[in-house]
Amino acid sequence: MAEGSRMLQARALLQQCLHARLQIRPADGDAAAQWVEVQRGLVIYVCFFKGADKELLPKMVNTLLNVKLSETENGKQVSILDLPGNILIIPQATLGGRLKGRNMQYHSNSGKEEGFELYSQFVTLCEKEVAANSKCAKAGVVVKHGTYGNRQVLKLDTNGPYTHLIEF
Amino acid sequence: MAEGSRMLQARALLQQCLHARLQIRPADGDAAAQWVEVQRGLVIYVCFFKGADKELLPKMVNTLLNVKLSETENGKQVSILDLPGNILIIPQATLGGRLKGRNMQYHSNSGKEEGFELYSQFVTLCEKEVAANSKCAKAGVVVKHGTYGNRQVLKLDTNGPYTHLIEF
Repeated sequence: MAEGSRMLQARALLQQCLHARLQIRPADGDAAAQWVEVQRGLVIYVCFFKGADKELLPKMVNTLLNVKLSETENGKQVSILDLPGNILIIPQATLGGRLKGRNMQYHSNSGKEEGFELYSQFVTLCEKEVAANSKCAKAGVVVKHGTYGNRQVLKLDTNGPYTHLIEF
Repeated sequence: MAEGSRMLQARALLQQCLHARLQIRPADGDAAAQWVEVQRGLVIYVCFFKGADKELLPKMVNTLLNVKLSETENGKQVSILDLPGNILIIPQATLGGRLKGRNMQYHSNSGKEEGFELYSQFVTLCEKEVAANSKCAKAGVVVKHGTYGNRQVLKLDTNGPYTHLIEF
């Protein structure tokens, strides 16, 4: 396990949502907190490890947006692009944690700048993929995302999260 | 990776919640759906793999209830038992999925009966652990859980899910 895990470049956790709301800026003095929200679609929690190569990103985005995990009204499993449904991307560095005694350690996580760069490009690629998809464009699908480095205050409403882990 | 992963016995995904509500029985004719809910605490999604041994369960429960992932009002990380906070256990077989092409496969998951047995004992052990903890008893901490095999219709409200994966 140890050897295999060390080679991981990224970890993505997928949940289906009916509605999700994510804080992108906390309240500050008189300024209220800012949120993004999506209606029905896919929540992608994402974490990058040390040594993750940005050349991985196109394949990663392609995989996540095309894996058949979204349920149509007829109960058929299709991709989020084919549903079509919205996408909420949440940076979640904690997903890279490893248990050490009673604590989690994050030594395998990518550094902050590197992680930010990977996350930003990941978001951009998702946006491009959705924009280029005629079904999504026609349906008015949106891609929203959290602020890297922030606390990801999340409210999630599901008809079954149908949680899946995909590692790269 | 393949070899290492094959030895996995269980996968647990942890999220912190302010409030969570989980359906334990869907609506049926005139009967309304039934739900359980917890206030602030820990959501444990759990999945067992083929070959999981029930002797693993005490260690697994001990690890999950004692890992320091819950934040006190002072920002200190403590265990869910020390917080103390509530626990919501969600059976989530999808966590055992592996990507094959554009589909997820669940060949490594424990069989239904075996998985049900492991899940039931896992829940019982969590309940016992919490009942035996004086802090939890005093605070009126509750342990709630989903119905094995059902669709896990979930509503989750967080101050940051702080998502962690722990494998056994």
